[in-house]
Amino acid sequence: MVDSPRSGCPISLALEVMGDRWTLLIIRDLMFADRRAFRELLTRSEEGIASNILSDRLKRLVAAGLITKGEDPSHKQKGRYSLTEPAIQLVPLLAELGGWGRKHRPASEALAIRARVLKKGGPDLWDDLMDELRADHLGAKRAKRSGRAELQAAYDKAVAKRAAA
Amino acid sequence: MVDSPRSGCPISLALEVMGDRWTLLIIRDLMFADRRAFRELLTRSEEGIASNILSDRLKRLVAAGLITKGEDPSHKQKGRYSLTEPAIQLVPLLAELGGWGRKHRPASEALAIRARVLKKGGPDLWDDLMDELRADHLGAKRAKRSGRAELQAAYDKAVAKRAAA
Repeated sequence: MVDSPRSGCPISLALEVMGDRWTLLIIRDLMFADRRAFRELLTRSEEGIASNILSDRLKRLVAAGLITKGEDPSHKQKGRYSLTEPAIQLVPLLAELGGWGRKHRPASEALAIRARVLKKGGPDLWDDLMDELRADHLGAKRAKRSGRAELQAAYDKAVAKRAAA
Repeated sequence: MVDSPRSGCPISLALEVMGDRWTLLIIRDLMFADRRAFRELLTRSEEGIASNILSDRLKRLVAAGLITKGEDPSHKQKGRYSLTEPAIQLVPLLAELGGWGRKHRPASEALAIRARVLKKGGPDLWDDLMDELRADHLGAKRAKRSGRAELQAAYDKAVAKRAAA
């Protein structure tokens, strides 16, 4: 995946890590849906990822330094994936990707609201989210504000407003 | 490419259009290097894209409504590709992608400077760039400020500063 770079272009280098149809969806599920175990990532995937593809992409992500595999504290037999700092810094990219998809593709209404909130929240919301992910995935001290709760609250509000309209 | 969506998730829908190793590089070259003809996109590609892949991706991009193919005004026989409004709105995504690649991958120094300027410029610079692309690709009225000239000037300045250091 990152054996011999095609060029020194930062865009090309980024695409060598995440330029496929699945990698960023796995990051998305780790990031926004808190799916940390292989089985959760597999069975709760909206896009129906195949087991062998999930397994391959997780290995590549570990090799590229975007995720780590540790033990689940409650089930010693089960692996638990965590995002690394470089992966956490993909929040703005995923916000832009979702914002673009919402605007230009036939996104489902419920998921489009979430993408709109995330895009509209901008760097302030993204920073909060990243701090929260650092607490959950890297064991950093938890931030005062919760970016994910904020995103959820804004989403709930938008859904309620839409339902009332 | 966009036959039957895997899910209604905006991130997934966006990846169905651009989730591969080449599509965003073609957009990058149309956007930042003003390569508008097939031959230019092929022969000046830093990543050495293969002719059949380039041809396939251009067809998919036309089908997805991200580029259009017209005539070159100076050579009636030659095709000339233009970005559409949805593709022009990928500027922020490419800025985030390049910013991430610069920070977390072994980017070449010269290209990393450009990515830094683009990321650091933020929404103001991106808006200027998009206006300029609208003028060049959609025939819109040209903006007063030139986003691309601004990016180039900032880049030249950074290179000169580095050379002097």
